Amino acid sequence: MNKGILFLIPCSISDAPAAAQLSPRVLHELPSINSFLVEDVRTARRFLSSLKVFPSIENLRFDVLDKDTKAVEVESLLSPLLQGRSIGVISESGCPGVADPGALAVKYAHRMNVKVVPLVGPSSILLALMASGLNGQQFAFHGYLPIGPEIQRAIRESEKESLAKKQTQIFIETPYRNNQVFIHLTKTLKESTMLCVAIDITGSNEQIRTQRVGEWRQQKTEWPKLPAVFLILAE
Amino acid sequence: MNKGILFLIPCSISDAPAAAQLSPRVLHELPSINSFLVEDVRTARRFLSSLKVFPSIENLRFDVLDKDTKAVEVESLLSPLLQGRSIGVISESGCPGVADPGALAVKYAHRMNVKVVPLVGPSSILLALMASGLNGQQFAFHGYLPIGPEIQRAIRESEKESLAKKQTQIFIETPYRNNQVFIHLTKTLKESTMLCVAIDITGSNEQIRTQRVGEWRQQKTEWPKLPAVFLILAE
Repeated sequence: MNKGILFLIPCSISDAPAAAQLSPRVLHELPSINSFLVEDVRTARRFLSSLKVFPSIENLRFDVLDKDTKAVEVESLLSPLLQGRSIGVISESGCPGVADPGALAVKYAHRMNVKVVPLVGPSSILLALMASGLNGQQFAFHGYLPIGPEIQRAIRESEKESLAKKQTQIFIETPYRNNQVFIHLTKTLKESTMLCVAIDITGSNEQIRTQRVGEWRQQKTEWPKLPAVFLILAE
Repeated sequence: MNKGILFLIPCSISDAPAAAQLSPRVLHELPSINSFLVEDVRTARRFLSSLKVFPSIENLRFDVLDKDTKAVEVESLLSPLLQGRSIGVISESGCPGVADPGALAVKYAHRMNVKVVPLVGPSSILLALMASGLNGQQFAFHGYLPIGPEIQRAIRESEKESLAKKQTQIFIETPYRNNQVFIHLTKTLKESTMLCVAIDITGSNEQIRTQRVGEWRQQKTEWPKLPAVFLILAE
């Protein structure tokens, strides 16, 4: 029997209608899938419902794959693949497998010799890098900056690494900490370091701005509480 | 006067029809742009022509922005933005600003206080990371591995860094060197290190496979001469 396929299905990263930001192939493949691994069932149902490709989402199966899912559970969640049924992985925001728990499912799919197909959609990390004008030939993504007094040391180390490797350093932040992290970055980084702040990418409040830390310091900036990506390049 | 917008326009990364891999917003924004900065005029014309959004591509303006373009030239290429005319940046493959010279245009756009809008489309680096099942919470992109005797040292250093930081290390390769680089990787890396090879992503010969180096060594593998991404995670 042919095995099913593990499809990696991107979803919207902003208030913009999802269908405008997803590649048409997503809508083309979805009708062949009726089982989904999702971070949050409610938002995944709402997302699929908004795409209007299923006559009803009541017949779809949703299982939770989040940061608390154990490896042994993942194996059993993926077992329908061995019976020829395809499964879709959907993240809370953007591309499954990037800055989310989806990679665990993919890892087991490879172990089971199951085909993995990534579909094209929005990634705030990649879009921020594109729009930053910083080095796109060498870059590193670090997730979140540490909370607490650790943050300044982490910023300084990241700046040092950026300078040594000419490597763009990328961080994400949860909306309510944007201003706090921005203040830490502008206080701690060197004047000559380039800093890009990318807020609400693809959304109605999208703002992407790159300038030297010295220039940021001369302005009073207040960021909205929306998803943000911070990128630095030391020069 | 309102300034124009610098749009970052992704294009196809395989033989698949471009329109199936681009977000619909690309097709929606394109008709408002009649001036493009491109790596290669011939392929950019062919790409835009295939999308069938312009009545004729004869009236479009194309200027070359490639690795040999000087900073001072970029400033003059972008000057139409100050007269309110939008410009599109198109890479040879995938997303402008990532592993290509497009970042130079973006950098100047920020300096000119021009709005930069990244559009959603395929990136072989991001799709390979999604489909690798390797760590998507921490990753670094390094471009090409060095040619010649340097390559083994570079692979070993990258493996060491991956282990120390739990960081997925990502490289791209030009098609004709795939097999050579694959042999170097499987010979040089430790048995326990995870290696993902992602070939022709989104294309008709797409192959994405992750396993331990020890497992790769037990198979005879011959890769087609198609675009490839290599990802490693030391464990």
